Amino acid sequence: MPRRAAIIGGGPAGAGWAARFLLAGWDVALSDIPETLASAVFENARRALPSLSDVALPAEGQLSFHANAAAAVPGADWIQVTLPDGTAEAGQLLQAIQTACPPDAIVGLSNWVGQLSVLQDGAPHPGQVLSVRAFDPVYLLPLVEVLSGAANSSAVVDRAVGILSSMGMYPLPMRARRDGTVTDRLLKGLLRDVAQMIREEEATPAELHAAIQYGPLLDLLGTGLSDSNNFGSSESVFEHLLSQNAFATPHTSSPRSADQHRDETLVTLLRGLKARDAGAGKLLNAQDRRLDRLPLTLDAVGDLSQPVPTLHRAVPLDWTDYNGHMTEARYLHAFGEATDRLMALIGCDMAYVASGVSFFTAETHIRHLDEVRAGIRINITTQVLLGLGKKMHLFHRMYAGDRLLATGEHMLIHVSLTTRKACLPDDRVALPLTRLAQSHADLPWPEGAGRAVGRK
Amino acid sequence: MPRRAAIIGGGPAGAGWAARFLLAGWDVALSDIPETLASAVFENARRALPSLSDVALPAEGQLSFHANAAAAVPGADWIQVTLPDGTAEAGQLLQAIQTACPPDAIVGLSNWVGQLSVLQDGAPHPGQVLSVRAFDPVYLLPLVEVLSGAANSSAVVDRAVGILSSMGMYPLPMRARRDGTVTDRLLKGLLRDVAQMIREEEATPAELHAAIQYGPLLDLLGTGLSDSNNFGSSESVFEHLLSQNAFATPHTSSPRSADQHRDETLVTLLRGLKARDAGAGKLLNAQDRRLDRLPLTLDAVGDLSQPVPTLHRAVPLDWTDYNGHMTEARYLHAFGEATDRLMALIGCDMAYVASGVSFFTAETHIRHLDEVRAGIRINITTQVLLGLGKKMHLFHRMYAGDRLLATGEHMLIHVSLTTRKACLPDDRVALPLTRLAQSHADLPWPEGAGRAVGRK
Repeated sequence: MPRRAAIIGGGPAGAGWAARFLLAGWDVALSDIPETLASAVFENARRALPSLSDVALPAEGQLSFHANAAAAVPGADWIQVTLPDGTAEAGQLLQAIQTACPPDAIVGLSNWVGQLSVLQDGAPHPGQVLSVRAFDPVYLLPLVEVLSGAANSSAVVDRAVGILSSMGMYPLPMRARRDGTVTDRLLKGLLRDVAQMIREEEATPAELHAAIQYGPLLDLLGTGLSDSNNFGSSESVFEHLLSQNAFATPHTSSPRSADQHRDETLVTLLRGLKARDAGAGKLLNAQDRRLDRLPLTLDAVGDLSQPVPTLHRAVPLDWTDYNGHMTEARYLHAFGEATDRLMALIGCDMAYVASGVSFFTAETHIRHLDEVRAGIRINITTQVLLGLGKKMHLFHRMYAGDRLLATGEHMLIHVSLTTRKACLPDDRVALPLTRLAQSHADLPWPEGAGRAVGRK
Repeated sequence: MPRRAAIIGGGPAGAGWAARFLLAGWDVALSDIPETLASAVFENARRALPSLSDVALPAEGQLSFHANAAAAVPGADWIQVTLPDGTAEAGQLLQAIQTACPPDAIVGLSNWVGQLSVLQDGAPHPGQVLSVRAFDPVYLLPLVEVLSGAANSSAVVDRAVGILSSMGMYPLPMRARRDGTVTDRLLKGLLRDVAQMIREEEATPAELHAAIQYGPLLDLLGTGLSDSNNFGSSESVFEHLLSQNAFATPHTSSPRSADQHRDETLVTLLRGLKARDAGAGKLLNAQDRRLDRLPLTLDAVGDLSQPVPTLHRAVPLDWTDYNGHMTEARYLHAFGEATDRLMALIGCDMAYVASGVSFFTAETHIRHLDEVRAGIRINITTQVLLGLGKKMHLFHRMYAGDRLLATGEHMLIHVSLTTRKACLPDDRVALPLTRLAQSHADLPWPEGAGRAVGRK
């Protein structure tokens, strides 16, 4: 039987809570959130949250909108509520909710975090009321702080933790405190320092922006506080804790392999930012453009009678399996990069694609001939087997030095991006493609081309 | 002509600097760093730094070890030095360096950051001495703070910035200050708050660890300070700056698409951590194991006479191109996941692989039949065309609902992971594979199987 949550108010954060429950298969009743706002947030959540899973999420629950809290909460197992600012109004809403909902429903307060006991005092079932603070976007960030006071039994806290965990969140149960949650305090401390440096003109906003995005905070995400080497020695309490291994996490066997482990996580994060061209990734992309030495035009290629160099790079750490060998799919990833470069060489570049046409891969045949490890440089050369009409038939060879690692044979079709149907390329692509295909016409037919899987 | 750097002392951070220069093609002269330590750091840097590039790095420069600083610095364009703790000794080393190096060499001080002017005062060429602070691991984190004082010309700062930028680092030029760099101050502030909360028993180290790894700091990496919604309203100066758009970055057109942009970056970071099973990624992997509903054993499959379900998932945001369609290589990625699941079903699981044998893909044929967008659920079913001796011939069909998106035909060979040669599978795999292959023997031969690229 699906479980039921009611979300009362809270704007985008409330809608984010609703999305969390809905996509975890719960029925969700909403009030005091505009339907258009909720729909926009749900659409974003439906794009993003399932992306975090490599298996399918349960089917979505039922969604309903209600005129007020009292109408939304009957039958609810969990009620997440953002209270009004005034004490009297906040108390009244809580009263109305707990009068209409099941007596054992958990009521999570999104705001009023520092005043849990004040609100519990006037509530019909104070033991069921907790401060439950999540972070924006609620449907993606796992952390949720669960603050309880003297009125709450440990059974209620355990139940709340169990429900939040079941949705893939990371509940952090803590005692309620006047100054809000641990995370709020960390963020406020960071903000306070940022604001002070700006006020004292010691750093500009842009500089602080850079210090956060390009520096050691990157490391903290993978390692937490335990393993970072970037903290100074000025904090004696902290040093003492470090020396006692208070932050100890299960460690690999040697400092050397711990460093490698840290590097692999950093590389993965930085390459992720690179793929998004965000934060530090923007910088890395700019550096690639400076370092790129492969020809960008047919005229720059030189000898057109030979297969064209279309890729030259190292195998990055995040392309390898636990044995350190390049994974199957990354061979095709590299061949795809080579195809993109070949396309750019014949004039099918970003500007051409922006005009609404491109080549799509229809068929691929890969032969895996040898293995390669992270860090090794690989080269790809590309031979045009056919470049005629709507068709482009390519044969890539991937090498590490002289060693042939794999071949990739691809049939591409020129298509309209609007109709998704095949169409003839424009002359600015058709002519260079013909020129290259004719230059390659006398090359011997490659071994392995035109072959089916398992046939010689 | 290659340029030359000298690195004097500094332990792992010094060796990290040396690796940065070396892998950027500079010749590097070292002193006061043990050769074994340097070698270990270089080995890590050679694994990790080229991974950040999607093009090849320049050839490595020449490396040399020297007995002392005076022997290392002649001819150097850049000298990165970690000075001794005592003022007199630090001054003497700086004197020795600037006596032996070219007069226009830049001397970057890794430590003594708050006392730049003290050290400049006694130096032969004070204008060439800068505080240059990078972060561990120096060969991966881009940020480097370049602090200058009254003695430094802007030309020297510009030259330093140009050199650091050319290596792909992010130099942040600032005025020297007594309390160190902006980043040190941010980190110390964070530490101070962490230490205080622990001392006052308001949070345990493990809770703080979680708050950092699972919460809104994740968001800061992609957005910096500009776009995060997680800061409270308690800092009026900061609020004022925000209202003035002091942190403004080029924005997409609507709040809605800005949110989607933020989500895509967060998804990419979280999926990166997931691939590494680090930080918040560990949590996501645990959730996947809870949600997984596909059979894990042949007996759980039910009807063995039909192709076996081997994948059921949504297309994640980081699998798509700028048009929102799944990229070519991710079709093979998904087929690879399906192959892994099929292998697990016939007993070729992690424990079996740990015994030193596995199946390797020798050949692949993919037909791309239709497109699919992020967020759409895909299913793969797998038909065994052959399971005999060392060979396993698989045919995957990928669907979105009833729509056939692609087929993947794969020839796998059973190999010894020690010799990397073909060998017969153990009975615990051979018998289930035979059972499944026989159950599939009466299925019709799939359309498109056994076909070469471009042939009907």
